[in-house]
Amino acid sequence: MTDTTPLGIIAGAGAFPPALARAATAQGRPVFGLLLKGIAGRELEAYPHAWVGIGRFGAILKAARKAGCRDLVLIGSLVRPNLWTTVPDIGALKVLPDVVRLYRGGDDHLLRGIAGLFEREGFQLLAAQDVAPELLMPAGVLGRLAPTEADRADIAVALAAIAALGPYDVGQGMVIGGRRIVAVEGAEGTDGMLDHCRHMRESGRLKWPPGTGLIVKAPKPGQDRRIDMPAIGPATIEKAAAAGLRGVAVPAGSALVVDMEEVVRRADALGLFVVGLEAGVK
Amino acid sequence: MTDTTPLGIIAGAGAFPPALARAATAQGRPVFGLLLKGIAGRELEAYPHAWVGIGRFGAILKAARKAGCRDLVLIGSLVRPNLWTTVPDIGALKVLPDVVRLYRGGDDHLLRGIAGLFEREGFQLLAAQDVAPELLMPAGVLGRLAPTEADRADIAVALAAIAALGPYDVGQGMVIGGRRIVAVEGAEGTDGMLDHCRHMRESGRLKWPPGTGLIVKAPKPGQDRRIDMPAIGPATIEKAAAAGLRGVAVPAGSALVVDMEEVVRRADALGLFVVGLEAGVK
Repeated sequence: MTDTTPLGIIAGAGAFPPALARAATAQGRPVFGLLLKGIAGRELEAYPHAWVGIGRFGAILKAARKAGCRDLVLIGSLVRPNLWTTVPDIGALKVLPDVVRLYRGGDDHLLRGIAGLFEREGFQLLAAQDVAPELLMPAGVLGRLAPTEADRADIAVALAAIAALGPYDVGQGMVIGGRRIVAVEGAEGTDGMLDHCRHMRESGRLKWPPGTGLIVKAPKPGQDRRIDMPAIGPATIEKAAAAGLRGVAVPAGSALVVDMEEVVRRADALGLFVVGLEAGVK
Repeated sequence: MTDTTPLGIIAGAGAFPPALARAATAQGRPVFGLLLKGIAGRELEAYPHAWVGIGRFGAILKAARKAGCRDLVLIGSLVRPNLWTTVPDIGALKVLPDVVRLYRGGDDHLLRGIAGLFEREGFQLLAAQDVAPELLMPAGVLGRLAPTEADRADIAVALAAIAALGPYDVGQGMVIGGRRIVAVEGAEGTDGMLDHCRHMRESGRLKWPPGTGLIVKAPKPGQDRRIDMPAIGPATIEKAAAAGLRGVAVPAGSALVVDMEEVVRRADALGLFVVGLEAGVK
């Protein structure tokens, strides 16, 4: 990959945008940060960059063109419902009817629509894992601990339930134990769901002994892998441990992992397994 | 229905057990309250009754036999994971291997199993609505406000998603708006899910304008209607309003309503619609 146009990284929050920037740089590809105001961290200020408002689609396009970008990656966490609530600029107004139409559907519609909007403007939207495959979840057990047969049975049930909910654009993550699903991820996101599980345990609503239950994250069938990959990182491990869970399972090759080393270190320290499932949900 | 054996009401929390007792009494049928310690309210003390521990299956059977009951109804809310955590008595120990086996599955397995346990002991487990059909959700709009066409579209999506999750014993309730499902009911129960939605709105995680979104509750396919009917009451309306929702939808004839008059009064006062759906999920 000897593309010399800068890779435009439209950066949300978290550790993924800097990880991607490091990976691209290591490959000799220049990087240009399109940093979303109020959302992105400051690490990408170490690279050529511009701060842009998230609702200001026109400003993002203009900055990307000026920097000579042709390929864009949208990465990092966004609290989705915020996406279009800031005052839109002229560029956004131009596309607003599309956005409103898209917004009426679920996540997938919105996100696929955003990819289409960038492409209509002459950019190519790439998946982070196409630029940096090292960010993908590998197959197999990552740390010291492995799931049991009972855990594998729970994982299979959760994967099937995630697939069943796929057409409804919800439930990319679930918490399950003893073959009973106790939480389904909605608008609260993965971290929110794990916090919610912690509260259910603390309040006695969920009377599992500690070290019962696990979280499964998987892409919905047909999910746009350029935009909405399931992701885990050290914070996922911390929150899963705080929720009293015993492990984290994601399909190998179908989820991003930020800071793999730290994920493994914390999982081992906190007594959780982390597994990349070989037979992923397609 | 001129059965003169007392109807044994195994009573959990909330307003349903007294409502059922009143309905049976109005039909001329004697009532015997089997009141679950620490869970049931004191209203049923106005009838012949015994207080029984929830884990003490043998004591429940013995009290029911002594009172001359043949028909039993299990009604009121139970925080399910608590169900078998108290010290079981001899009767329970006798059935414990069954219970443990049942507990490994989801809600449905457990509940169907409980029905089977009572039947094996010579009792008949009735559905509350078979004794008191007036507790069933009627068809149509209950109060002043009606769902819009857009609300109807949301309701259809949620019903389909609830049906899709049916085999996984989760998701009897969902919150949806603009065709996007934002919350799926897990172990937190309906009230917990509504509280969770309120928190998501208060924290800005869910940026819906007030009066956006609605809750749909429906039985899962194959759900045992004697034990686990979806239910709404005045508290559901209060919590839905606090979560900023615009309405409540449940299939007519497939959900229980406690205190219909008060449900309508509060829904009208708080500006919510309440609708009994004519084409329910089977």
